[in-house]
Amino acid sequence: MLTVFEHKAELPVLTDRIVESYCETKLTHHLDHCPLPNYSIVIEVIEDLKEIIYPGYRNRDRLHSSNVIYHVGEIVDRIHDRLIVLFERALCHGEGSTEQCVPEKLSSVEQIAHRKTVEFLEQIPDIRRKLAKDVEAAYAGDPACKSLDEVIFCYPGLEAVTVYRLAHTLYDLKIPLIPRMMTEWAHSKTGIDIHPGAVIGEHFFIDHGTGIVIGETSILGNWVKLYQGVTLGAVSFPKDETGELVRNTKRHPTIEDNVVIYANATVLGGKTVIGHDAVIGSSVWLTHSIPAGTTVLIEKPHLKIKNPIIEQDDWQI
Amino acid sequence: MLTVFEHKAELPVLTDRIVESYCETKLTHHLDHCPLPNYSIVIEVIEDLKEIIYPGYRNRDRLHSSNVIYHVGEIVDRIHDRLIVLFERALCHGEGSTEQCVPEKLSSVEQIAHRKTVEFLEQIPDIRRKLAKDVEAAYAGDPACKSLDEVIFCYPGLEAVTVYRLAHTLYDLKIPLIPRMMTEWAHSKTGIDIHPGAVIGEHFFIDHGTGIVIGETSILGNWVKLYQGVTLGAVSFPKDETGELVRNTKRHPTIEDNVVIYANATVLGGKTVIGHDAVIGSSVWLTHSIPAGTTVLIEKPHLKIKNPIIEQDDWQI
Amino acid sequence: MLTVFEHKAELPVLTDRIVESYCETKLTHHLDHCPLPNYSIVIEVIEDLKEIIYPGYRNRDRLHSSNVIYHVGEIVDRIHDRLIVLFERALCHGEGSTEQCVPEKLSSVEQIAHRKTVEFLEQIPDIRRKLAKDVEAAYAGDPACKSLDEVIFCYPGLEAVTVYRLAHTLYDLKIPLIPRMMTEWAHSKTGIDIHPGAVIGEHFFIDHGTGIVIGETSILGNWVKLYQGVTLGAVSFPKDETGELVRNTKRHPTIEDNVVIYANATVLGGKTVIGHDAVIGSSVWLTHSIPAGTTVLIEKPHLKIKNPIIEQDDWQI
Repeated sequence: MLTVFEHKAELPVLTDRIVESYCETKLTHHLDHCPLPNYSIVIEVIEDLKEIIYPGYRNRDRLHSSNVIYHVGEIVDRIHDRLIVLFERALCHGEGSTEQCVPEKLSSVEQIAHRKTVEFLEQIPDIRRKLAKDVEAAYAGDPACKSLDEVIFCYPGLEAVTVYRLAHTLYDLKIPLIPRMMTEWAHSKTGIDIHPGAVIGEHFFIDHGTGIVIGETSILGNWVKLYQGVTLGAVSFPKDETGELVRNTKRHPTIEDNVVIYANATVLGGKTVIGHDAVIGSSVWLTHSIPAGTTVLIEKPHLKIKNPIIEQDDWQI
Repeated sequence: MLTVFEHKAELPVLTDRIVESYCETKLTHHLDHCPLPNYSIVIEVIEDLKEIIYPGYRNRDRLHSSNVIYHVGEIVDRIHDRLIVLFERALCHGEGSTEQCVPEKLSSVEQIAHRKTVEFLEQIPDIRRKLAKDVEAAYAGDPACKSLDEVIFCYPGLEAVTVYRLAHTLYDLKIPLIPRMMTEWAHSKTGIDIHPGAVIGEHFFIDHGTGIVIGETSILGNWVKLYQGVTLGAVSFPKDETGELVRNTKRHPTIEDNVVIYANATVLGGKTVIGHDAVIGSSVWLTHSIPAGTTVLIEKPHLKIKNPIIEQDDWQI
Repeated sequence: MLTVFEHKAELPVLTDRIVESYCETKLTHHLDHCPLPNYSIVIEVIEDLKEIIYPGYRNRDRLHSSNVIYHVGEIVDRIHDRLIVLFERALCHGEGSTEQCVPEKLSSVEQIAHRKTVEFLEQIPDIRRKLAKDVEAAYAGDPACKSLDEVIFCYPGLEAVTVYRLAHTLYDLKIPLIPRMMTEWAHSKTGIDIHPGAVIGEHFFIDHGTGIVIGETSILGNWVKLYQGVTLGAVSFPKDETGELVRNTKRHPTIEDNVVIYANATVLGGKTVIGHDAVIGSSVWLTHSIPAGTTVLIEKPHLKIKNPIIEQDDWQI
C-alpha cells in the first residue's frame, strides 16, 4: 500500500500535462496579458453601491440622517478606488487589443478610467430616483406585497433592475465587459437576464421573474410590468457575406408605456412593437406588432381529457 | 496628470450629492428608524436550522447519537438569541408604525418576540417529521434518484420546501417580513418561488423546480408533485373603489391530494380546483376547475413542418 | 419581565425534544455512520478546477507562461488531497452499505479513491480541449457576444457546461453522489439543470439558459444549441411488478448534430430522436421523432384580441 506521500509522486507529471495544454488550447487562458477586471471585486462594488442606494437596509444598522454622511463617504471612497482599477483593466482589454498595455498608453487609460468613474458616481442620485419609482411600481402592482420595505428586501425583480440600472449607466459610458459581468451576477441570483444594452423606462416592475430574458436591443417604455418566464427575444440571426453573425441590428422588440406581459409569454423580433396600454396574456407567443390598447390572450386551448367516471360529452372545460 | 490623491478631491462633493438625494427620495432609505431585521443574520439562522433538521449532512462530520445533543444544544442557543432580536425588529416594524420603538413598548415587544421564538422552536420536531415525508416522496417520485441522501444533498425542491415549511410556521405565528426574506432566499438559490402564505400538505415533491411559482393563497393537498416551470397563479387583480389593489382574497388555485402537474403547466385563479388524483400534462394552460381523477393533456399541437427532402404529405408527426 | 437568562431556562427541553426526534425520524439524519462527502469542500474543489481550466480569469492576476506552473502545481496538489477524501467517503457510502467503513476495507477503498483521483486529473487537459470548443460555439452562436472573454466571464451556459463536463467524467469513473452535488451546485447558480449522466457532444452552446432541464439518459451530438427553458425530459415512468419505479431505462431524447432548439421548447421521451440539422422552434412541444433537416415551428396560435377602438375584422395578426 502506498503512503500518502508516494501518491504525490505522480502530481508533477499531471501538473505538466495541464500546463502543456495551455500552449495547445490558447483561447481559454489569460496568461501573458494585462490583468482582466476581477470578478469578485466587481461583485463587492455592486454590494457597496446597493448600500448607498438603499442605506439602512442591509449591512449597517442604526444609521441616522446626521451621521449617514460618514458611512456614505467611506463607501464612495472605496468604490472610487476600485472602479478606477476595474475600468482601466476593462478599457485596456476593450477591443481585445493588448497594445494599450504599454506604460505610455496606460497613463492615458488611467485618466479616462478616472473621468468615467466620476461621471458614473455623479449619476448615482439620478439612479436612486429611478429606482425609487421602480419600488413604488412593485408595491402598486402586487396584491401580495405588504410594504415598500418588503420590495427592497425581498423582490428579486428589484434586485435585477437595480443591477441593470447601474450596469446600463456603465454601458452608456462605453465601459466594456463589466456591465455584462454585473447583469450576469444578477441573473445568477434572480433568474432574470436583462442585457445591459436594453433601454428601460421608469416605474418598471418584474414579479417573480425567474426565466425572464430581455435582449440587448429591447426598448421598454414607462410602467411596464413583466411576469416570470417572459422572453423579449430575437427571431433569427442574419449572417453577413462571410457567414459571420451580424452583431449590430435591432433584434429585440419595443414595448410601449403601460404594457403588462403575463407569465411565460414570448415576444420576438426587432420590428415587433407592443403598443401602449396593451395586455399580453400568459403563454402568448407573438412575432408581430400589436396596436395600442389591445388585449391578447391565447385561445382556450384544445385539451384532451380522460376520465374513467365522467363521460367526456357531459363535461366541458 | 493627476495623482491618485488629486483624484480624490472630487469625492466629498459626490458624497454630498448622494446624501442630499436621501432627503429627496425618502421611500428607499431606512434612516432615523428602529433597525430592520438583518438579512445576513436571517440567512445564518436558516443554515443553523437546516443543521439541526438534517444533522450530519452539511457542516459537522462524525456526529454520533451520544454526542449530538451538545452540537444541537449550542445551535439552539444561537438560533434562540438571534430569533428574539430578529422577531423584535420585525414586530416593531410590523404595521409600518414607528410608535412601538419607544422604550416602554419595546419591553412588551421583547416579551412577544421571546414567546414566539419558543413557540417556533417547539415546532421543529414536527417540521422534521413533515420534511422526512417530503424526502420519501422525492425518492418515490424520481427514477433518476439513487438514494435518500441524494435527495437531502442535491434536490433544490427539498431545499425550497425546507425553507418554505420553516417560513410558513413563522407566517402562522404572524411574524412580518422575515418569512418572505426566507422564501426569497430559497427562490434565489433554487429558482422556486413559494410564498410563505401558501398551505401545502405532506409528501410534497418538486422535481427540477426552476421557474415554479406558488402564490400566496394556494392550497395543496398531500402527495402533490410539481415539475419545473409550473405556475399556480392569479388571473386578475380586482381593485377597490379607490383604485387600490384588493390584497386579501383567495387569488390562487386549490390542488387536491395525489395530483401531478408536469413541466411548464399554468393553473390560474382562486376558484380553480384541481380534483384529487388528476394529472395535468406538460404545458397545459388552465383557468377552470377539473374533476377528480381526470387527465388533461394538450391536444397534439399543429406544427409547421418544413423539410427540403421529405414531402410533407408523406410524413406526419 | 424575564431577563435574557431566564428566557434560556427553556432551551434544554427544546433541545431534548429535537434530539429525541432523531430517534423517531431516522431517514433524515446521518448520525453513527461514516462521514459523507463535505458539500463545501466539493464546491471549493470545483472553484479550484475552474482556476486551472481557465487560468488568469478569476482569482489570480498577472499569471505568465513562465510562472503559471507553480500556481497550477499548488492547486493540483490541493485538489488531489481533497478528492481522495471525498471519493473515499462517496465510495464507502456508495451502495448505501456501511460495511465498507470497517478499517480493513477502508484501506482498499483509499487505494481505489487514489486511483480514481489520478485518472480524473489525467483527463483535465482533454476536458480543457472540449471546453475551449464550447467557448468557440458560444461566440459563434450569439450576436450579442462581444468577445471570447465575455463568454468565459459571463455566460451561465458555459458555467453549467464546465461543471457538467467535470461531473460527467466522475460519473463515468463511477463515483457516487459527488457528480450530482456538482451539477446541482451549477443548477443553483445558473438555473440550468444538466444531469451528470447525460452524454453531450462537442461545441455545445446554451444561451441564457434559465429553466433548462437535460435528463439523465439524454444523448446530444455535436454543435447542439439550446435556449432558455428547453426541457429534454421523460414522458412517463414505468413501474415494475412491485410498484417501484424502473430506474435504468432510456427515458430522455436523443438530439443529433447541428440541432437548434429555441426557447421553452419541450422534447420528451426516450425513443424521440431529433435528426441532425433540425430546428425546433420556440415553445414547440414534441413527443415524436423528427427526420434530419426538418424545421418545426408552432402553428401561429389562435389568439383572442380585444380592442375598444379597432374593429377586429379590420385587423389581423
